[in-house]
Amino acid sequence: MKQAGSPTPAANHVAAGAAEANLNAERAALIALDWGTTSLRAYLFDAAGKVLATRASTAGIMNLPRSAEQGGFDAAFDDTCGPWLEHASALPVIAAGMVGSAQGWMEAPYVDAPASADALVAGIVRVKAACGATLHIVPGVLQRGELPNVMRGEETQIFGALGDDGDDGDSAGTRRRALIGLPGTHAKWAVVQAGRIERFQTFMTGEVFAALREHTILGRTMVTPDRPDTEAFLHGVSIAREKGQAGVLATIFSARTLGLTGQLTREQQPDYLSGLLIGHELAGLEAVLRQQHNSLAGESLRLIGNEALCERYRLALALYGCTQAELVKHATERGLWRVASQAGLVNPAPQAARAG
Amino acid sequence: MKQAGSPTPAANHVAAGAAEANLNAERAALIALDWGTTSLRAYLFDAAGKVLATRASTAGIMNLPRSAEQGGFDAAFDDTCGPWLEHASALPVIAAGMVGSAQGWMEAPYVDAPASADALVAGIVRVKAACGATLHIVPGVLQRGELPNVMRGEETQIFGALGDDGDDGDSAGTRRRALIGLPGTHAKWAVVQAGRIERFQTFMTGEVFAALREHTILGRTMVTPDRPDTEAFLHGVSIAREKGQAGVLATIFSARTLGLTGQLTREQQPDYLSGLLIGHELAGLEAVLRQQHNSLAGESLRLIGNEALCERYRLALALYGCTQAELVKHATERGLWRVASQAGLVNPAPQAARAG
Repeated sequence: MKQAGSPTPAANHVAAGAAEANLNAERAALIALDWGTTSLRAYLFDAAGKVLATRASTAGIMNLPRSAEQGGFDAAFDDTCGPWLEHASALPVIAAGMVGSAQGWMEAPYVDAPASADALVAGIVRVKAACGATLHIVPGVLQRGELPNVMRGEETQIFGALGDDGDDGDSAGTRRRALIGLPGTHAKWAVVQAGRIERFQTFMTGEVFAALREHTILGRTMVTPDRPDTEAFLHGVSIAREKGQAGVLATIFSARTLGLTGQLTREQQPDYLSGLLIGHELAGLEAVLRQQHNSLAGESLRLIGNEALCERYRLALALYGCTQAELVKHATERGLWRVASQAGLVNPAPQAARAG
Repeated sequence: MKQAGSPTPAANHVAAGAAEANLNAERAALIALDWGTTSLRAYLFDAAGKVLATRASTAGIMNLPRSAEQGGFDAAFDDTCGPWLEHASALPVIAAGMVGSAQGWMEAPYVDAPASADALVAGIVRVKAACGATLHIVPGVLQRGELPNVMRGEETQIFGALGDDGDDGDSAGTRRRALIGLPGTHAKWAVVQAGRIERFQTFMTGEVFAALREHTILGRTMVTPDRPDTEAFLHGVSIAREKGQAGVLATIFSARTLGLTGQLTREQQPDYLSGLLIGHELAGLEAVLRQQHNSLAGESLRLIGNEALCERYRLALALYGCTQAELVKHATERGLWRVASQAGLVNPAPQAARAG
């Protein structure tokens, strides 16, 4: 753990953080952690649910400063939140993400879908940190079946996206059916109804793209363009949508053959492949929605995640007839706040409770 | 290049090969090369099309003993076929595969599908080796369109599989429609009609499996079983067939989640994933066949390739209602012989010409 007062630049940074934390200490009401595989993000909230300060670290659960057996979780937590806790040691702490997996700090067993925010609260697991703080770890959600699905962290973001105005699960706002997409390494698409995560799908789109790009013949002819090529991306999406019957194992070969025939430059190939994969993801989603007598066309949905990636999804969704895809910002911290409130870790402030 | 008479073990091996070659020298009529990306296989034929000797090397075009600029192709050719040529320097040489690609010894431009054996012959490109021999390089086949497809080497195997009894393209045997599958890194499925490769599809099944296994989260929980697990494989095929609507980007995640829920052991996960991918390949093939008013059910087809892999495909095909999948052996050398005969590199022997 870094020591304030040491002359290294890193310690100076911590010292600056401590000074800032001191200013916020009196108002601080909650520390919230979004602790994934490759990163840790921390939020300091006041009693009204306003974010006072944030800290980010690369100390994801697979990237701890030392091994878990040697106190790696404590070290990462102290490095990131120590300055805050120094001035407000009694702060409640909530955490979501892979920190609750079998490889995490302590396993928070999945709750079954359909899952309400109340079920998440009931599934919270507590772990005592060396510094004295108690972490409240939010469980993930498991959808059982022949093709089981799991999420960890996304369940909290989803409730954050629903709870825009602080409404609880019983309000009209969350009784309606909502389709929520979370693009990324493992993209998730969830249907929420009556305040519960009813069912969801995982598409390994981001990770498959990286594996194809880095470790197959497709990457060999690719050159990263100076800026994303939207035309090549949409070309890929439309091929997947209109000519994708043979499936993604077949269509991806065209990233190479369109190069061989001079129809796609090296710089266009990465965005074309990205479009193909996202196009196939949406085709798969469309097939699942149809089984539920729904369709992407005319659907009004919400997206959570990296803004540039969500913008690509909006373009792709438009080709599927879905023009109402709203990007929800700050879903992670809102979700953490919401679950913490529902768990009684913070007293609902007048502002947050106004709709109650 | 290795020198006969040198005292190294490698040279002794060549010397032994030379002695053997000497015995075959009088009867030899053709050298045929299957020269791919990672391997080079050579066949010595007599005038009746019988294989007298074979040699194999890892000197694929991406794995030459030295760079192409430094005579790598000549070196690999001499290493592999030198002993044969020493005793029969006037032997005609035919070669198929990636040796004719832009990265090969000399580019043999693709001929367009539909492609007959005559079109392959017309597209042969000649290259003079340093040793004096002339290689006749068979071109690959290109199917143009929005999703172009290419093959190099498989076109020769396909004509080898058709020409079982030495029939030419005009016989009844090849006028019939035939569906031919070539499982592998880049699996091909070709429809042949009236002695022409009419159209074909490429599925990157083998390469995607390797990339997922080695370079994604799916591989992390996998353990290679002592022997292939047929049950886990067929489980994957049937999931792809019956529950694969969301597409392969979604179903592959179940290799992980079935592990998390205790439904699949670590040792079962590789075969399950293999089954999923091959199952999706066949689902894609089925969708393409349906557009052509055909179906895998009741289809009689031929498979070319690694015997164990073809056996897996036979099991998977049976789940799609296709129980007549015949493994064609020696398609590569038969195809090389057939194209060489048709090109006039060898005089048709009485046996080979009997059906003419």
